[in-house]
Amino acid sequence: MKTRYEKGLETLRSYTDEEKGTNHFELMKALEDIAPDLGTYIIEFAYGDIYNRDYLSKQSRALTVLSSLVTQGSGSLPQLELHINTALNAGLSEKEIIESMMQLIPYVGFPSVINALTQARKVFQERTEKALA
Amino acid sequence: MKTRYEKGLETLRSYTDEEKGTNHFELMKALEDIAPDLGTYIIEFAYGDIYNRDYLSKQSRALTVLSSLVTQGSGSLPQLELHINTALNAGLSEKEIIESMMQLIPYVGFPSVINALTQARKVFQERTEKALA
Amino acid sequence: MKTRYEKGLETLRSYTDEEKGTNHFELMKALEDIAPDLGTYIIEFAYGDIYNRDYLSKQSRALTVLSSLVTQGSGSLPQLELHINTALNAGLSEKEIIESMMQLIPYVGFPSVINALTQARKVFQERTEKALA
Amino acid sequence: MKTRYEKGLETLRSYTDEEKGTNHFELMKALEDIAPDLGTYIIEFAYGDIYNRDYLSKQSRALTVLSSLVTQGSGSLPQLELHINTALNAGLSEKEIIESMMQLIPYVGFPSVINALTQARKVFQERTEKALA
Amino acid sequence: MKTRYEKGLETLRSYTDEEKGTNHFELMKALEDIAPDLGTYIIEFAYGDIYNRDYLSKQSRALTVLSSLVTQGSGSLPQLELHINTALNAGLSEKEIIESMMQLIPYVGFPSVINALTQARKVFQERTEKALA
Amino acid sequence: MKTRYEKGLETLRSYTDEEKGTNHFELMKALEDIAPDLGTYIIEFAYGDIYNRDYLSKQSRALTVLSSLVTQGSGSLPQLELHINTALNAGLSEKEIIESMMQLIPYVGFPSVINALTQARKVFQERTEKALA
Repeated sequence: MKTRYEKGLETLRSYTDEEKGTNHFELMKALEDIAPDLGTYIIEFAYGDIYNRDYLSKQSRALTVLSSLVTQGSGSLPQLELHINTALNAGLSEKEIIESMMQLIPYVGFPSVINALTQARKVFQERTEKALA
Repeated sequence: MKTRYEKGLETLRSYTDEEKGTNHFELMKALEDIAPDLGTYIIEFAYGDIYNRDYLSKQSRALTVLSSLVTQGSGSLPQLELHINTALNAGLSEKEIIESMMQLIPYVGFPSVINALTQARKVFQERTEKALA
Repeated sequence: MKTRYEKGLETLRSYTDEEKGTNHFELMKALEDIAPDLGTYIIEFAYGDIYNRDYLSKQSRALTVLSSLVTQGSGSLPQLELHINTALNAGLSEKEIIESMMQLIPYVGFPSVINALTQARKVFQERTEKALA
Repeated sequence: MKTRYEKGLETLRSYTDEEKGTNHFELMKALEDIAPDLGTYIIEFAYGDIYNRDYLSKQSRALTVLSSLVTQGSGSLPQLELHINTALNAGLSEKEIIESMMQLIPYVGFPSVINALTQARKVFQERTEKALA
Repeated sequence: MKTRYEKGLETLRSYTDEEKGTNHFELMKALEDIAPDLGTYIIEFAYGDIYNRDYLSKQSRALTVLSSLVTQGSGSLPQLELHINTALNAGLSEKEIIESMMQLIPYVGFPSVINALTQARKVFQERTEKALA
Repeated sequence: MKTRYEKGLETLRSYTDEEKGTNHFELMKALEDIAPDLGTYIIEFAYGDIYNRDYLSKQSRALTVLSSLVTQGSGSLPQLELHINTALNAGLSEKEIIESMMQLIPYVGFPSVINALTQARKVFQERTEKALA
């Protein structure tokens, strides 16, 4: 039977495209020296325990997380960039991602949505460039 | 051709079950005396313009809004109550609603999720009671 | 020459109508046993130092504070109630207060504004009742 | 009779000085390719419906919006930059803008106010340079 | 060797006084029907993994959590009540708890601190009453 | 007897190491031209009145402030950088600072903690470089 770490790693990989966009592995590597356990918690708890639960599709989980980060404001912009990539890897289209941000205008106002769309535009372009490279 | 108000009213009604749970019409009525235009903006802009856009299903829009309100903390609890009802009317199951809240634990922490689940539990019970009444 | 405390007390009184609405003095009294210095800081720093500065009218200061509390979400509802009263005492009309909340819809979204308007409505009613009493 | 778009465009222009500072038109242009309707909503809803309402002066509306963005924290810094420019175009003086930020110290604490003042300083300098250019 | 659940349960108990104040067990019980795994995650991840780490004393961990909840605004008031109790059970004095809230005035402003102190006052009284009962 | 300004300046200096890391004096200097009183309020109120109170150690005060800024999200990153330096100057170890951020994962979620750890890593490196220079 798989450990939480193995289950989490497998799930995290299914949300990751190492060819395209920034990903959790780079981020965890960058903090490995000062916070070695951080990556373990992300893999075991976030991806092993939570993302592995039933009743919601991968796309719906990605949508839920994206909406939360947009709502948190660009205070979470680096994280937003990461999860726009995750959402695309989970199978959401660029149009669905933009649309989920537009849907938040009446609930968080224009400023946070504008910051999020600006970040989305940047991610879409980077992925196109990487794909063409 | 329908006006924005007519389109919005139709869309809002499709997210409303006046038999069950609290709904936007009660809320707009309560503020009609001091802010008569508020209801018009909710119907024309939020439901007429935004909820009527393409590329996302009703369920996905409800999920996106729910995630945003959970992230805003119980500062938006009265609104959260309203949109848990909206989400159920849009066709999300209780399990999907709970699951979308559980998915946010790694992104907003336990306290906001616990407050949201407490509110969801209250709404589910009220709807059962109204259904039995 | 007046002390900061005397200046602050005078300024705070100019924003207070002990006949109507809740006020800072009740609030400071309620916390006097566990946080005796809190009231001193509110009077000396908030009202003595800050509210006494130049370049903005009393109404503009009240408007700025109100907008901040609406933006903080109903997490600050008890404070919002206090400062809706302060704003009225500073000479803003009910219409101007409602209008400043409506102006925030594109910047914070409907939920926080709806919570704020609900609070404003409550305060306006209480003051009318006290006036009639 | 003017359409909401025409009314909004006229109002937005009255808050814009294309010679000085960043403005909404640049911002909407930048997102036109991925979110073509965003600009329409900003013009029709924010400026056509909301900014055009009665009972508050242009300066008071600008002050209210500025206070909200300062309170939202530097998560909205790009938006704050935009609206410091809007506030100056609406006729608020640099001193009034700084003062409205100082007034928020007791309500949001020093960090958000320091970030806001740093942004204001940057905008004031850029406008002076553009004016001298 | 202890499981994460056993370690977590032991740690959680060391922060709990079932005689006094509200506690996590009541809270988890209340949500058991709709979110049975929530309690497991709180015990295994929050208390088993995180609270069990080295380099910070129990008091310092309680202080850190308290400061975070005060900063989140009264959106987390029910949680704040829980963690004021946790902090007292961890060995912080009432004076230290009040002081940590006063220390936040320059960083979050008066409103959030006033809401937090009001909550602390309520918890202190309830515990005295329970102790006398 | 010392004035509030003298007391505050002395306290602020005890949290400052002008050799290492960014500090309040640079920050106040940068805003002196547009907000000359800001520095006075930081020294008199924040450091003179608040940091000088009893019942909490310097380390505990630094820990409380750090936790608040992490919770405010990277909206306060420039301030967070300042207070990571303040915390080190107050005698907290790098390990204790990292640990206080890890402790917040269950209360604010991974994104804000990841942003904070990234900032801490940057500050630790800068101080090492300055020390070696």
